[in-house]
Amino acid sequence: MELKDDKKVFGGRQLRYEHASQVLNCTMQFSVFLPPQAEQGKVPAVYWLSGLTCTDENFSSKAGAQRAAAELGLALIIPDTSPRGDDVPDDPEGAYDFGKGAGFYVNATQEPWRRHYQMYDYIVKELPELVEAHLPLSEDRAISGHSMGGHGALVIGLRNSERYASISAFSPIVHPTQVPWGKKALSGYLGSDEQQWRSYDATYLLEELAGQAIPPILVDQGDADQFLKEQLCTEFFREANKASGAGAQIRMQPGYDHSYYFIATFIEDHLRFHASNLR
Amino acid sequence: MELKDDKKVFGGRQLRYEHASQVLNCTMQFSVFLPPQAEQGKVPAVYWLSGLTCTDENFSSKAGAQRAAAELGLALIIPDTSPRGDDVPDDPEGAYDFGKGAGFYVNATQEPWRRHYQMYDYIVKELPELVEAHLPLSEDRAISGHSMGGHGALVIGLRNSERYASISAFSPIVHPTQVPWGKKALSGYLGSDEQQWRSYDATYLLEELAGQAIPPILVDQGDADQFLKEQLCTEFFREANKASGAGAQIRMQPGYDHSYYFIATFIEDHLRFHASNLR
Repeated sequence: MELKDDKKVFGGRQLRYEHASQVLNCTMQFSVFLPPQAEQGKVPAVYWLSGLTCTDENFSSKAGAQRAAAELGLALIIPDTSPRGDDVPDDPEGAYDFGKGAGFYVNATQEPWRRHYQMYDYIVKELPELVEAHLPLSEDRAISGHSMGGHGALVIGLRNSERYASISAFSPIVHPTQVPWGKKALSGYLGSDEQQWRSYDATYLLEELAGQAIPPILVDQGDADQFLKEQLCTEFFREANKASGAGAQIRMQPGYDHSYYFIATFIEDHLRFHASNLR
Repeated sequence: MELKDDKKVFGGRQLRYEHASQVLNCTMQFSVFLPPQAEQGKVPAVYWLSGLTCTDENFSSKAGAQRAAAELGLALIIPDTSPRGDDVPDDPEGAYDFGKGAGFYVNATQEPWRRHYQMYDYIVKELPELVEAHLPLSEDRAISGHSMGGHGALVIGLRNSERYASISAFSPIVHPTQVPWGKKALSGYLGSDEQQWRSYDATYLLEELAGQAIPPILVDQGDADQFLKEQLCTEFFREANKASGAGAQIRMQPGYDHSYYFIATFIEDHLRFHASNLR
């Protein structure tokens, strides 16, 4: 992996890397924040999965997460949201909610997406192996994300309980099999057999894991979020949480919308939550 | 003034307004952060002047300033960096350092800039009158800014001591009459008579105000800033500060560059500095 940018922030370092991804068959960029504590030894990492249209730069520049991460001694690993490059197929109509910038953290099984759109494996396997081999990171991981990335964090965290100490999400798409964004993405990447979609649906996963040990979960959702009713539908997850006894903490935040201002307001809470579980 | 956007952040409100500027002869947009305390009564305001190429949105979304402003009960008033619109002349070659996005906070005297490029009067008079008439703001003001906006904050604060409780700057162009960015802008907007440039040069102003009461000043400058040697030249201001006994606090911050990561790291210090002087 090649270092492309290195900026000091809150006493730590905001880094940007480029690497040739074997899993995605393309060149990828990702960002990392290393807290000052990483100069003394290995630190735990919070993976941040971004939402539709984002790259690794949105969270890096807009969430203000480095302040609390520097205090808590947490690294932040911030991947892109899809494979990239001229060779990578995109939505034929250039839609914002499918193709580039909209990988939905799945392993695509359909043509022409299959070759590059393997974001699930990239986040679960390739990226952690890469950064843990080259950076001062322990194998203690937590995962968080926003919107499409909140979906990704819940799904990846629930399916890989042993790999993540805790899971959190802002404004997640909790039941993608039942909402327009999710149906479009899952049918496109996985085909029309809806049984294949279930393992990428956090609400179904929570129900199926009833009675099993899962990582602690924190979800924040703004009640003024313009996507709440049609796309995010937090209630499904709340019901599954109740039915399964999973104990997820699901907070409705009055007056907040879907923007990075919402994330900036509560990211410190999320990082403290992860830090307490990573110890 | 017309409200264009209203988002909740850190318990306060991030607002965006549009208005017809009489001084600039064009339609302008600006951003405001109102802290939660503004629901109970009038609050003091910190004006933030941005740098080259910026609009009101860069500081709003990247500095993370709302967190400390909400705690301290400070409003943030965040103007654009130049007049805007199709009627407003721009640099004929589309340069980033002159014309739109590069008003340098001066009152232009030269054609074709004179009609619109009156950013000094806009910041000192029109904008405060507008926001103080329509928003829950006291007449207690402080001023800060970055790079070109650090120049603007120092010049406007020093020339209007009675209007600002305190002045601060990140990476300011302290001696624009002597550096490429400043020479280009001042000769373009003010003409070739260098005597006309002096009242827009913070280093000269500090020297001329020796022995007079001026607001407390805080300057932060990263020592890894790529513009430090050629454009910012903090040393001139440090020498004028020493010679004049002005007592400005000028801090070199090791390892920091010119980016918003630098601003994000130290904006809390600046807001605490202003809050202590605004009481």
